[in-house]
Amino acid sequence: MARDERGVTAQSEDFAAWYNEVVFKAGLVDRGPAKGTMVIRPYGYRMWELLQAELDRRIKDTGHENAYFPLLIPESYLSREAEHVEGFSPELAVVTHAGGKELEESLVVRPTSETIIGEMMAKWVSSHRDLPLLLNQWANVVRWELRPRMFLRTTEFLWQEGHTAHADEAGARRETMLALDIYQEVARDLAAMPVIAGEKTPGERFAGAVATYTIEAMMRDGRALQSGTSHYLGTNFATAFDIRYTGEAGRDELCHTTSWGMTTRMIGAIVMTHGDDKGLVFPPRLAPHQVVIVPITRGGNTEVEQAADELARRLRGAGVRTHVDARPQLSPGFKYNEWEMRGVPIRLELGPRDLEAGTVMLVKRLGEEGKRAVSIDELPQLMPAILDEFQQQLLTRATEFRDSNTRTVDSWADFADAVATGWALALHCGTPACEEDIKSGTAATPRCIPLDGAPASGMCVRCGAASAYGKRVIFGRAY
Amino acid sequence: MARDERGVTAQSEDFAAWYNEVVFKAGLVDRGPAKGTMVIRPYGYRMWELLQAELDRRIKDTGHENAYFPLLIPESYLSREAEHVEGFSPELAVVTHAGGKELEESLVVRPTSETIIGEMMAKWVSSHRDLPLLLNQWANVVRWELRPRMFLRTTEFLWQEGHTAHADEAGARRETMLALDIYQEVARDLAAMPVIAGEKTPGERFAGAVATYTIEAMMRDGRALQSGTSHYLGTNFATAFDIRYTGEAGRDELCHTTSWGMTTRMIGAIVMTHGDDKGLVFPPRLAPHQVVIVPITRGGNTEVEQAADELARRLRGAGVRTHVDARPQLSPGFKYNEWEMRGVPIRLELGPRDLEAGTVMLVKRLGEEGKRAVSIDELPQLMPAILDEFQQQLLTRATEFRDSNTRTVDSWADFADAVATGWALALHCGTPACEEDIKSGTAATPRCIPLDGAPASGMCVRCGAASAYGKRVIFGRAY
Repeated sequence: MARDERGVTAQSEDFAAWYNEVVFKAGLVDRGPAKGTMVIRPYGYRMWELLQAELDRRIKDTGHENAYFPLLIPESYLSREAEHVEGFSPELAVVTHAGGKELEESLVVRPTSETIIGEMMAKWVSSHRDLPLLLNQWANVVRWELRPRMFLRTTEFLWQEGHTAHADEAGARRETMLALDIYQEVARDLAAMPVIAGEKTPGERFAGAVATYTIEAMMRDGRALQSGTSHYLGTNFATAFDIRYTGEAGRDELCHTTSWGMTTRMIGAIVMTHGDDKGLVFPPRLAPHQVVIVPITRGGNTEVEQAADELARRLRGAGVRTHVDARPQLSPGFKYNEWEMRGVPIRLELGPRDLEAGTVMLVKRLGEEGKRAVSIDELPQLMPAILDEFQQQLLTRATEFRDSNTRTVDSWADFADAVATGWALALHCGTPACEEDIKSGTAATPRCIPLDGAPASGMCVRCGAASAYGKRVIFGRAY
Repeated sequence: MARDERGVTAQSEDFAAWYNEVVFKAGLVDRGPAKGTMVIRPYGYRMWELLQAELDRRIKDTGHENAYFPLLIPESYLSREAEHVEGFSPELAVVTHAGGKELEESLVVRPTSETIIGEMMAKWVSSHRDLPLLLNQWANVVRWELRPRMFLRTTEFLWQEGHTAHADEAGARRETMLALDIYQEVARDLAAMPVIAGEKTPGERFAGAVATYTIEAMMRDGRALQSGTSHYLGTNFATAFDIRYTGEAGRDELCHTTSWGMTTRMIGAIVMTHGDDKGLVFPPRLAPHQVVIVPITRGGNTEVEQAADELARRLRGAGVRTHVDARPQLSPGFKYNEWEMRGVPIRLELGPRDLEAGTVMLVKRLGEEGKRAVSIDELPQLMPAILDEFQQQLLTRATEFRDSNTRTVDSWADFADAVATGWALALHCGTPACEEDIKSGTAATPRCIPLDGAPASGMCVRCGAASAYGKRVIFGRAY
């Protein structure tokens, strides 16, 4: 009974309904009062903190420094880069009044910070010795969202945005790829998401970029989710904000800049990459609780409770994030279902008979192996490997799912068939009109031109013209 | 020569000018384009990160969970608590347009989050089992500032805001004091700031609070800086937002709530607590670089450079944040002055003759002991204790400074004299009119009623009426 009440719509039945139910029921998020805003609840925020700590370490290890730039940007700043303002104008939230007065110039709540950081870079860079300038900030941004979806598209979200300035194109392009590498590594090694790294086609570029790179992940409904982007901005923002330096030879030069970001969208990505009909499945490296212990006490059993606390203490000592669910008013069965729904990788059930035998029942979230008794004494030593194995299992499962839902296609019929349930690897002519035609016919868009794609050329899968890019493009329906 | 060019105005000559010069020259901050906003540069932000990590750990260790609430709050939320809206209205930044349209209801950029968090608490709390609800968020807030001063009063600043709900007054009051204890500990043990913890007089309370507690620090110009506050909100916000629960006996009850915050103002507090005529002096526990090594190479000396890098590696291995200043275009003397100005606790000078002798010259930032040669081999082992000693030295120095500039006074003449250069400990009648009278006469305000103040009563130092509070009040001019 408890199962039915707490259950969620099956993924296969209605994936969108499943997602919406599970993110709320699991306590990851709540709706904010302003349109499209979200409250990130502690269980969701903890996952963000775990991701943030790992991403921040990698950003610092590669020589970047964190800083903080103002939230409010003069409206005129955005207009200085023509494509940038065109891309972001429809999404802006605008402060017109402050301190009880109407402002002379309106301020926009930052949708991204290329402009204000560009303005500061121009001030800070004068010589080639000041380069590269490698900055990052952790911040909130606001982009007015008409079709909000928790974590995936919200009016406000949290992210890091890297912004760097370089002496030349080669340095800036290396930086763009370095950031993409970090994102790919974080997605794979922490979130167990086997993403494809590639370049966006011109129509999907960031507003103001010369080249945009992305990592694309496949969700369990076959759709693509852009999970991190890195942009080579050329000299576009350097020209608009006058970011110049004196070179070694004394010549005045324009900088080449980059920007790159990863956001709280990653929480939604993890939910949709690993979740199943029972609810969430969290990769251990980002799980707020890696292990939950449920003591089976039937109206109070101090010995079992103490043993559970002692086991938790020892697991924490082994570096395992462990939670003891000691709520007296709820049955063990209720708790099992709840923690399954909330995605905890490993559940330990500890009752009086287990305690007598010196064992605990271990249940993995994917459940295929059933319950097994494990020695309490040995568990703290074994647990890190059990968690690693589970982490690897999720990555393997997601990789197999993605591969079995990605088809190399050369006919329009096969293309339409492939993107109805997953991804198509196809040759494309590269023209915006043909991209638009494909989108209106199938809802699929070019997700990326994979960096490691094999050379290929021939006829466009849609229009029959000569293919572009020298390799196949991934198409899919996207979030 | 280099010294004069990079020098700053003497503190004794013009403290405000000294402060403004040093925060910019040291690379802590820059001006943002919107009125009163600041850019926190990497050197300043790193200090904030170090403080944040330690404060966050203490917040979590005491059972609080981090979450994130929206930046944009419907204007009507603020109006629900009468004193709150009155206090914050003059400082609000208001979003009237978004997504290309005028909004039906304007949104304010959060000046603080009691209202939006109150709204969510009402949704999340239903039973006594849901209490206490212990939340914290790290966020930016905006309060329109007409007289901005970097770090101390800026239109946007960063902070953590704790928000908790409790079953009764006793629980909420304990929480209020717990947060204050954490702030006092962080200020003392990390920032080497000997703050006074106390209650604010009614006229200085947070808008909407029943009681406001503060930690007050003395800056080196004798002024007070409020460095963290903790509020017992009674049932004011619970009433306004309907935060209720069913008690064990089945009765419907109102929650008692608290809120508490510490901000990037702390960076300014550290600058003004420890700085001197040469510039910044950073407490080792929050110093971005605890040690800077300056290799003396005169046109390139690979051996010295390698030895400096090797020493840095070994110091880092001993947990010491170490920076090697290898900039080839600058002289050692220039670097010494720069790192003194930037507040680095320990400087190590390493030249060919030092290297031959197996020693390095160690100079402490306060400089009283001059230079001394220390064995390179032994240094990594010695350094943690050297840093601890320096940290303690700063705390002792600041405590002595504060104590020698705080006077217990019983006459108006002595009072006026004391607050001209420091703090006065005086009896006060507690009436707002008399507070106002003191302020207009001396610019001094009641900073707090110290928690550990000895019982005292008698006549008000200003008006001669009977004293209130049962103890002396600290008065001082404040930032």
